[in-house]
Amino acid sequence: MSDLFIDSKFIVSGFTCNKVIKQGGILIENNEIVAVGKVEDVKKLVSGHDKLERKNHIAIPSLVNSHTHIPETLLRGICDNEKLMTWLNDYIWPFERQMTSEDAYYGTLLGCLELIESGTSGFIDQYFYAESIEKAAKEAKIRALICPSVFDNTPESGSLENTWRHVSNLLNNKFQNKNELVNFGIGPHAPYTVPEDYIYRVKDLALKNSLPIHIHLNETKREVEEALENFGMSPIEYVHKLGLTEGKILAAHCVDTSNKDWKIMKETDFTVLHNPQSNLKMTSGIAPIHSYLDLGIKVTVGTDGNASNNDLGMLEEISTAAMLQKYKSNNPKVLENSQALQLGTVNGMKALGVNSNGISNNSIADITILSLERSHSWPQNNILSNIIYSSSSSDVTDLIINGKIVYENKKHKTLNKERILEQCSKISERIITGMGK
Amino acid sequence: MSDLFIDSKFIVSGFTCNKVIKQGGILIENNEIVAVGKVEDVKKLVSGHDKLERKNHIAIPSLVNSHTHIPETLLRGICDNEKLMTWLNDYIWPFERQMTSEDAYYGTLLGCLELIESGTSGFIDQYFYAESIEKAAKEAKIRALICPSVFDNTPESGSLENTWRHVSNLLNNKFQNKNELVNFGIGPHAPYTVPEDYIYRVKDLALKNSLPIHIHLNETKREVEEALENFGMSPIEYVHKLGLTEGKILAAHCVDTSNKDWKIMKETDFTVLHNPQSNLKMTSGIAPIHSYLDLGIKVTVGTDGNASNNDLGMLEEISTAAMLQKYKSNNPKVLENSQALQLGTVNGMKALGVNSNGISNNSIADITILSLERSHSWPQNNILSNIIYSSSSSDVTDLIINGKIVYENKKHKTLNKERILEQCSKISERIITGMGK
Repeated sequence: MSDLFIDSKFIVSGFTCNKVIKQGGILIENNEIVAVGKVEDVKKLVSGHDKLERKNHIAIPSLVNSHTHIPETLLRGICDNEKLMTWLNDYIWPFERQMTSEDAYYGTLLGCLELIESGTSGFIDQYFYAESIEKAAKEAKIRALICPSVFDNTPESGSLENTWRHVSNLLNNKFQNKNELVNFGIGPHAPYTVPEDYIYRVKDLALKNSLPIHIHLNETKREVEEALENFGMSPIEYVHKLGLTEGKILAAHCVDTSNKDWKIMKETDFTVLHNPQSNLKMTSGIAPIHSYLDLGIKVTVGTDGNASNNDLGMLEEISTAAMLQKYKSNNPKVLENSQALQLGTVNGMKALGVNSNGISNNSIADITILSLERSHSWPQNNILSNIIYSSSSSDVTDLIINGKIVYENKKHKTLNKERILEQCSKISERIITGMGK
Repeated sequence: MSDLFIDSKFIVSGFTCNKVIKQGGILIENNEIVAVGKVEDVKKLVSGHDKLERKNHIAIPSLVNSHTHIPETLLRGICDNEKLMTWLNDYIWPFERQMTSEDAYYGTLLGCLELIESGTSGFIDQYFYAESIEKAAKEAKIRALICPSVFDNTPESGSLENTWRHVSNLLNNKFQNKNELVNFGIGPHAPYTVPEDYIYRVKDLALKNSLPIHIHLNETKREVEEALENFGMSPIEYVHKLGLTEGKILAAHCVDTSNKDWKIMKETDFTVLHNPQSNLKMTSGIAPIHSYLDLGIKVTVGTDGNASNNDLGMLEEISTAAMLQKYKSNNPKVLENSQALQLGTVNGMKALGVNSNGISNNSIADITILSLERSHSWPQNNILSNIIYSSSSSDVTDLIINGKIVYENKKHKTLNKERILEQCSKISERIITGMGK
């Protein structure tokens, strides 16, 4: 029996996340929402459904974390005070050279624990060890779009050519075996780490297999300046010139962009994966997503890897996103509450390749439930405002992914938390010792 | 029996919050820490102390929220999308005209619930209804520095002269009756709301009674421009010229400051109360606190009122402060972890007028305990980093203020939460209806 009836004090309903139903009910059959409305109306349709009574709670569409490097969870806190290139050269890349595929599997399980605890039903990843990430995500029963990295410094293979063979074999093969929750894309790291001929190969493979292309673009001023020197154009213009934008682009960061870039972002299938906390912390800047949204460019929110952020909490990330856009645009009206919530939920689902209309009839049943127990959720004058600016990831009590409960009353239903924490502590200690840190 | 022995997995020790003791113990007698160190050493000193076993936890010095308008907690979420002056004129001031002293008492109790749940042992407030705030803070057994507002638009009295009489009587009187936890200062709202002759009266009263002066200064560019027009100088220069800086200045915001201001801030008894989230959300800007710290100017962190932030969580606020300073200075090395924690804890205690050395021998026993239960606290490579960037207010399990447990295992020991939430919901609804919102 997997059909479910949820009885909740508040429901944030509708595709644009702007409708709040008080004393609401949601009926789920298989993986679909079949009814949503006032609890007394929905109740009449219940026949043998399991019941989830959440009378001091809010149900919202599930959060989606649209940019992660999930095994990096093992590296949380290792380096807080460096710019991107030092952070990569002196910390992340040496770390990655110590990592085994089993480590990556456990690191992903730890990341999945955190994603689930913070109410996140899916993530878009770019990393090595795709098979380890796949295995862990399937155990967690979480949505994942896994985009194996193509990168000139891949630790798992020793050379770019080896990486390419591995990734292209994997994707030609996996594409035949995608499942309901876990899917694949391709992850050319960035124009400054992937030579031109490999960008062409990525393009061909992506177009052949309809793979989304998950890439870092225009993350820092320095990156853009170097691209102007090396290619005579910005990273976005460069990948456009090479034809990569014929595919579906999932572009992390896009902090430092020009009008020319904006034109490309608008006219191609281009989604910005915005990572406000990571961009602040590494002094990369603030992406002008209010302008992107005005132009009709697709925007989602992610946290980036735990080595830079240092957590995967999406409620905190959309709150930061909203506050920063008000500051950056000098206009407190931008990114109002329902829009901020939409960026972190339904927009992320679309980037994942799942057509969601939030908590609406006939939409996919991915739902996050937040407790109203903490005083920061009172009074309840403005539910959306409380969600964005007062609630925290720790308020999440339940998570439903594709109609199944994976987290219930703060208990994991798919993963053995104690075993994962223990294993990850050992691995992390071993790797850090190996790095001489 | 109030003496206490705490056994904790980690203790953040020392005045500069930079020492992490693994498997630590703390011994408290009366309101003082009498021993701190490895648990096996401290254990030997235990004789009949109550025990708090927190073996999967971190003990840190208690957080202090250095700028609040605590009864505004009733107004959480009422207005997220306006600039300071519209927000004041169209929302906050009309709201305040509906508020009674009993409402302010309940609003303060709600704020105290939230402060306690988020591990905050004290707050520095500026608002009307000082007696209501005093009553609530004493019930909560929380530290408070209550600074009654002097303001040309005070709802409780009808005129500035009436307000002045009320506030000056109160402070002449209260000064004789201050208690161990609750103390008083004076709160001239800002140079743009308090006429010159009243600034002089504030100064005389403050100097006579050694009252700290809690004031809003240089919050926005517009405020500074208007001051340049009206006074021929910045708000900080103006209050300095009037001699207010002969007293102890607790200055909220200081976002838009010049070298001339910096000289005054450095040469007088001046503490900046930094409110990064409120300043972003109302597009006021980012105060250059890394420069203030470089100059040796005292800095603390606060949340501002719940009507602008919209929560009182200090762990999130210091995380935002640290990320923003890295971004603003374009230097990821500024505000490293122990310094960020110090701003939100011991520096706040000093602004409150309490001489704290954090978790150290002979220091005052104000301690916050965080659970490591959530996955975002693993692995534990860098405890300080996890506290600043991964943990959340909701991880707080226990709070000790002045040697007494006020929050134990997420249960309030001083306040009746259910009754306060119920009462505040009613009041908030009544006021918002009265405002026609």
